[in-house]
Amino acid sequence: MRDLAETSPRHRPDAGGAVVSEGRWAHRHLLDVDQLTRAELEACLDLAVEMRERRDRHEALDDLRGEVVGLAFMEPSTRTRVSFELAATALGAQIVNLPIEASSVTKGESLVDTLLTLQRTGISTIVLRHSLSGAPYLAARSCDARIVNAGDGTHAHPTQALLDALTLREAIGPLEGKKIAIVGDILHSRVARSNIHSLTALGASVWLAGPLAWVGDFVDWPGVTVANGLEEGLADADAVMALRIQLERLSGDSAMSLREYAAAWGLDESRMELARRGAPLLHPGPVNEGVELTPELATSVRSLIGTQVTNGVPVRMAVLSLLAQ
Amino acid sequence: MRDLAETSPRHRPDAGGAVVSEGRWAHRHLLDVDQLTRAELEACLDLAVEMRERRDRHEALDDLRGEVVGLAFMEPSTRTRVSFELAATALGAQIVNLPIEASSVTKGESLVDTLLTLQRTGISTIVLRHSLSGAPYLAARSCDARIVNAGDGTHAHPTQALLDALTLREAIGPLEGKKIAIVGDILHSRVARSNIHSLTALGASVWLAGPLAWVGDFVDWPGVTVANGLEEGLADADAVMALRIQLERLSGDSAMSLREYAAAWGLDESRMELARRGAPLLHPGPVNEGVELTPELATSVRSLIGTQVTNGVPVRMAVLSLLAQ
Amino acid sequence: MRDLAETSPRHRPDAGGAVVSEGRWAHRHLLDVDQLTRAELEACLDLAVEMRERRDRHEALDDLRGEVVGLAFMEPSTRTRVSFELAATALGAQIVNLPIEASSVTKGESLVDTLLTLQRTGISTIVLRHSLSGAPYLAARSCDARIVNAGDGTHAHPTQALLDALTLREAIGPLEGKKIAIVGDILHSRVARSNIHSLTALGASVWLAGPLAWVGDFVDWPGVTVANGLEEGLADADAVMALRIQLERLSGDSAMSLREYAAAWGLDESRMELARRGAPLLHPGPVNEGVELTPELATSVRSLIGTQVTNGVPVRMAVLSLLAQ
Repeated sequence: MRDLAETSPRHRPDAGGAVVSEGRWAHRHLLDVDQLTRAELEACLDLAVEMRERRDRHEALDDLRGEVVGLAFMEPSTRTRVSFELAATALGAQIVNLPIEASSVTKGESLVDTLLTLQRTGISTIVLRHSLSGAPYLAARSCDARIVNAGDGTHAHPTQALLDALTLREAIGPLEGKKIAIVGDILHSRVARSNIHSLTALGASVWLAGPLAWVGDFVDWPGVTVANGLEEGLADADAVMALRIQLERLSGDSAMSLREYAAAWGLDESRMELARRGAPLLHPGPVNEGVELTPELATSVRSLIGTQVTNGVPVRMAVLSLLAQ
Repeated sequence: MRDLAETSPRHRPDAGGAVVSEGRWAHRHLLDVDQLTRAELEACLDLAVEMRERRDRHEALDDLRGEVVGLAFMEPSTRTRVSFELAATALGAQIVNLPIEASSVTKGESLVDTLLTLQRTGISTIVLRHSLSGAPYLAARSCDARIVNAGDGTHAHPTQALLDALTLREAIGPLEGKKIAIVGDILHSRVARSNIHSLTALGASVWLAGPLAWVGDFVDWPGVTVANGLEEGLADADAVMALRIQLERLSGDSAMSLREYAAAWGLDESRMELARRGAPLLHPGPVNEGVELTPELATSVRSLIGTQVTNGVPVRMAVLSLLAQ
Repeated sequence: MRDLAETSPRHRPDAGGAVVSEGRWAHRHLLDVDQLTRAELEACLDLAVEMRERRDRHEALDDLRGEVVGLAFMEPSTRTRVSFELAATALGAQIVNLPIEASSVTKGESLVDTLLTLQRTGISTIVLRHSLSGAPYLAARSCDARIVNAGDGTHAHPTQALLDALTLREAIGPLEGKKIAIVGDILHSRVARSNIHSLTALGASVWLAGPLAWVGDFVDWPGVTVANGLEEGLADADAVMALRIQLERLSGDSAMSLREYAAAWGLDESRMELARRGAPLLHPGPVNEGVELTPELATSVRSLIGTQVTNGVPVRMAVLSLLAQ
């Protein structure tokens, strides 16, 4: 199926034209981080820090009081769905879950019909995860509810990129001029794609390391360097982000086995020593232990994997709050 | 399987005996609209209008404060389930969802056992959708919770009929003496069956148009006329309601293909011009575009499809509130 | 698969060392009733009675205000899940449901990863049902959230045992010296296993009756007598508990057919007359009517099946409250 997100500018109904004043967003939807300016990205991260503190103090927040947030996850998810559910309720919203299987999609109802129905029952914000790249753009054009992209196909995962940016900023300071290495299957990763946008917008230098077929397309991206092998990618990196490998990609058309991938691109402590002293490690989870990284590395002091999850809720609170302004 | 609803009077535990005073219902359950008098129907619609206004003003309502409403949808549904969920919480109730697959029905527990369990945990109202015609009647006889029929087999869908009546009343005024055409597969439609009861009770003249096998059984129903073809059905109609076709019915025993159905009975703007000037179009959704009606008609000014969905929440608020009195 | 719960003492992270003062528990998790002293068991039942009264008075309770309880049911369940959901919300907690199919377990994420993710998003208590005996012990060792076992494989079902104890105590008085007969497939029943622990701890004498292959392993358990046939088991029993038979066990390796089981071990009113006059009957539900007991017995005055369900919510409120202290 053709990717809806990549055909033309009109598929980015929310891109451009944003006016930021006093940390506010002028956006109705969050479809990808590429729609956000550096100032907007920073404002979101700042607000997430504030949200985290207020949540930790058990403050009653009411940014979304009286609103209903619909969680339309058309692909399985634990961490992202739960995180959005907790974020929305922490802001005083009611949530409505649309279980994949119970939705009328099984009756042949189209995505747009389902979303229109939700909007017409009074749902003001729809958090959408969909296997089709670009589905949130279609949603944003088709219904009046605010749309938050919770991951679409291989295209984008903006709230993951925002929580990664917050986690990185708190671990290594401002990202301006920092070298961030992303290792793995960049080509098929919505996490990598969104991170490339946000990290370069925040001034970081992004290095990509992985099998050529999975990194080659990115040689001309501004702010991005395709490394000549893992060693060059990791060398003096300020932080390293490993991506989840879809294991099924290592059997079909790929010439590479799981074992070969782990041997060539899997991270362990000795490889991490190529990076700057104490450079942290991120991974969007869930980790295939022994493939993308060793179990030891996953639980070492370098690992920010738990912090990423923890930051998911306040970042999503910030996003929902900013969109509702 | 034999329809439980149609065997004998004792299957209608809630029919008859209702005393209406000051707009109150004397009913414990809503099993079908045929249990409601004209005065009760009108009272429900009036209350729905009030509920809609109060919800729009974000008033905190507490008609169901401290109560738990169980949503037992044994068939997939988006619009009806979400609508009941929002209606119950808008009235201050807690809701509990019983996902189809997670219910103990997979352990061989019977419907009655499941409902008794729910009641015994403190659930006061059960909203039931079930593929078996008459299941809500069985439920009402078997447990002490209030039962709201959210669609049972091919039998009844009373809250759909109520929201249709409200939508029609607001579009064309009082239904007394109005001609309402219902087009499609009346025989298998719980929406049509309930609408026939409520629309005739409200004084409308209901005309049925569709393939003979799907309308023939209704020739002797009081207040109902089986049209001699689509043209007669639509002629000077004050409003037209198209029904969703179960596409699988157009392949098996039916002698009619999808294409033949659309050609003979599908609605478009030119056919709608047989009706009264500006006559509105209803459809319970989701629409099979190009079958029951054209995409153009679905989004034309005639179409009240969105309004029907919007009216679903306040109508269900009114029903839940009236049953809880 | 090897049972995680039965390999060594370190698999019981919460056993022993409990200090009870003023009815408080010193436990972080509820993994099985065998971790509870008699005083703790009694304190829990006393608190459950208080919770039931306060819930009946619609008192607003806030024992879990500001907390999030995650319901991770990896096996289908209606009564237990709904009961925990109502218990948690009655104490002021927010609940998050993890539908089996939507959880990232389908992505190959391990149980531990899923639970760690939940904890990191801010979930303080996880109610876990899992087909693997011992899974809650693994969970308690692996993450910092409180773990409540809602049934693990054939191992334990502590909250069921607690609600059974409460139901029995209110029906026949203090359990000290009472004879309680448990009838059926003890070997594969987590309900029976937990009840044996709690009933003997409360001073009851537990008699087991069932096919030899299903009771033989228990001959040496302290406080337990394996009856020589159904008659001896029921003779002068103060109460009788029938277990749900997994019907599939009566076809495969078993030499016994369903009909043979019902003839030999099924309960009816005449068999119940072997017990003390008016001895009550319990069953964890759902009942296979005509197998474990007759439909008449299930609805007779002896039957406490409905009371068991009703007691489920306040018992689970007591457990959640005691763990949160």
